[in-house]
Amino acid sequence: MPTIAVDAMGGDHAPDEVVKGVAQVSLATDIECLLVGDERRIQENLEGVSYNPEHIAILHCRDAIGMGENPHEAMRRRDASLLVGTRAVAEGRADALVSAGNTGACILACAKHFPLIRGIRRAALASVYPRHVEYEGQDRFALLLDVGATVRCEAEELVHFAIMGAGYARRISKVTSPRVALLNMGSEETKGGETLVEAHRRLRALAGIHFVGNVEGNDLVRGRADVIVCEGLVGNIALKLIEGVSEVFTDLASVAAERRLSWRLGLRLLARGIERLRELTDYAQYGGSPILGFERLCIKCHGRSTAQAIANAVKVAAKAVRDRVPSEIAAAVAALG
Amino acid sequence: MPTIAVDAMGGDHAPDEVVKGVAQVSLATDIECLLVGDERRIQENLEGVSYNPEHIAILHCRDAIGMGENPHEAMRRRDASLLVGTRAVAEGRADALVSAGNTGACILACAKHFPLIRGIRRAALASVYPRHVEYEGQDRFALLLDVGATVRCEAEELVHFAIMGAGYARRISKVTSPRVALLNMGSEETKGGETLVEAHRRLRALAGIHFVGNVEGNDLVRGRADVIVCEGLVGNIALKLIEGVSEVFTDLASVAAERRLSWRLGLRLLARGIERLRELTDYAQYGGSPILGFERLCIKCHGRSTAQAIANAVKVAAKAVRDRVPSEIAAAVAALG
Repeated sequence: MPTIAVDAMGGDHAPDEVVKGVAQVSLATDIECLLVGDERRIQENLEGVSYNPEHIAILHCRDAIGMGENPHEAMRRRDASLLVGTRAVAEGRADALVSAGNTGACILACAKHFPLIRGIRRAALASVYPRHVEYEGQDRFALLLDVGATVRCEAEELVHFAIMGAGYARRISKVTSPRVALLNMGSEETKGGETLVEAHRRLRALAGIHFVGNVEGNDLVRGRADVIVCEGLVGNIALKLIEGVSEVFTDLASVAAERRLSWRLGLRLLARGIERLRELTDYAQYGGSPILGFERLCIKCHGRSTAQAIANAVKVAAKAVRDRVPSEIAAAVAALG
Repeated sequence: MPTIAVDAMGGDHAPDEVVKGVAQVSLATDIECLLVGDERRIQENLEGVSYNPEHIAILHCRDAIGMGENPHEAMRRRDASLLVGTRAVAEGRADALVSAGNTGACILACAKHFPLIRGIRRAALASVYPRHVEYEGQDRFALLLDVGATVRCEAEELVHFAIMGAGYARRISKVTSPRVALLNMGSEETKGGETLVEAHRRLRALAGIHFVGNVEGNDLVRGRADVIVCEGLVGNIALKLIEGVSEVFTDLASVAAERRLSWRLGLRLLARGIERLRELTDYAQYGGSPILGFERLCIKCHGRSTAQAIANAVKVAAKAVRDRVPSEIAAAVAALG
């Protein structure tokens, strides 16, 4: 059974929800968790819940990186839970890392302690996000990468992202041959400038990847592709835009409920329909975002993660370790020649 | 009174809706319209509606560019309504152009026949899109540019886009001092890579622009800024993503209405609330998207434009001509030194 290091002090609801999530996993699975953080506070939280002590160990440290801290400056705090946890994985005391903390700090911590896979030049933060399914049984989630680790990319890096995303999706999602697409401003292969034209050409020629061509912004919320590749700047803006539309929707619904009795009644009748719509855009609770490209895996959870989201992320991390996702990516990159 | 050349043959509903829109304008205003296209078909459509013949002239041509045509190849068709209309403006027979036709062809036609404003290196397609207002009386629309004319940008071009967007918004929207923001992957000035960091630095130092810093993807649908600047690849993906979420929303609502009586009833009670939500994302009917950076103005309407949208665009074009928007932009760029 793999051991997962969990940053107990990272996230808006840390350590409470993080510890609760790990406790859930300890009862439901054989996964071993290494909770990294302030031992006293972790123990306090464990005392309030049921858990299996055989599956949980604590790695004590005093410091923690705040959500709003400058990631580069945070790297100096060697005794922070995130950095202690990352080192534990690098040294083989755990097999993968889960954190709901400062995203920039997570990426830098991985870059500092985990070697890049041979042949890969830049890491990617991938985001699992829910989309509108187009047929019964289609996976409700798609994978968008990069969403912020590598701001600008060359064509070669986009090709690596495609390999990384497809490798991860093949193991973690229900799709055996995930459809990979390039996010662009038009479906024609001539669109998007030099880098995207070159990436399109290389992806089309690539064996072992089911490349379906370019997709546009509106396709992101549809089921046309399972893995969507772009540079970090574009992916970050797109993902936050989906989140923003969801927030506005929630605001409008609650304002509507306050304003009129008929609207309140209407919203109540539609409750389940609205829930489905909200799921489409509210990706806060879904599993987590893998940081790909390193020999070790880190699953970054949303800062707002609940215990359930943390538990999902730990299970996903364990599955990725068992299925040797980094080795699969390494083999695919080596095959590029 | 300004004369506006209108591409009668461009758009999904051309020439019917285009002619109907121009007929509306001819009755309601003193704007002169030059309808460019197949005279027989234009006359047929005019016969079916009321209009003021003193305000409408026809410039006959036989050819028209299709919505799906390759824009570069379309430029060879010199007798197409779009190119005849653009030349009419370039030669001073009209003051500005309105078209609901092929977007790429519109941009190329302007680039071919209109000189760039002195000091401006690249044109921008700006899109007026509706957003969630944050206080009573706030303009319901914001301006995003570039959304596809200039794929990749240098910092200087982003600064020009800010000047162009602010100049246009100052004249066309209700805001006297529009807040200008840079679309980025974080609010900190160090975010987004070299080009965006440099653009941020220059915009902050710029007199005559109310620069409010970086905004992120989720801010696009909020009221935080009135003019949002980005490179064409990013703007195009963001705009289409907003459109895509709207489409999914409409689909889900109609599926919900079919599936359950309680949902149908709920939707009926919410009808006005849903309409407001849809307005937020469905930008098809709003005025049009100015192509900025040239000495002459072109307002590009959405391909799906109705008569009402065409009429709005013609009025906006006339207002921009009367308010000398290109001269204002030229003066602001000249002041950069």
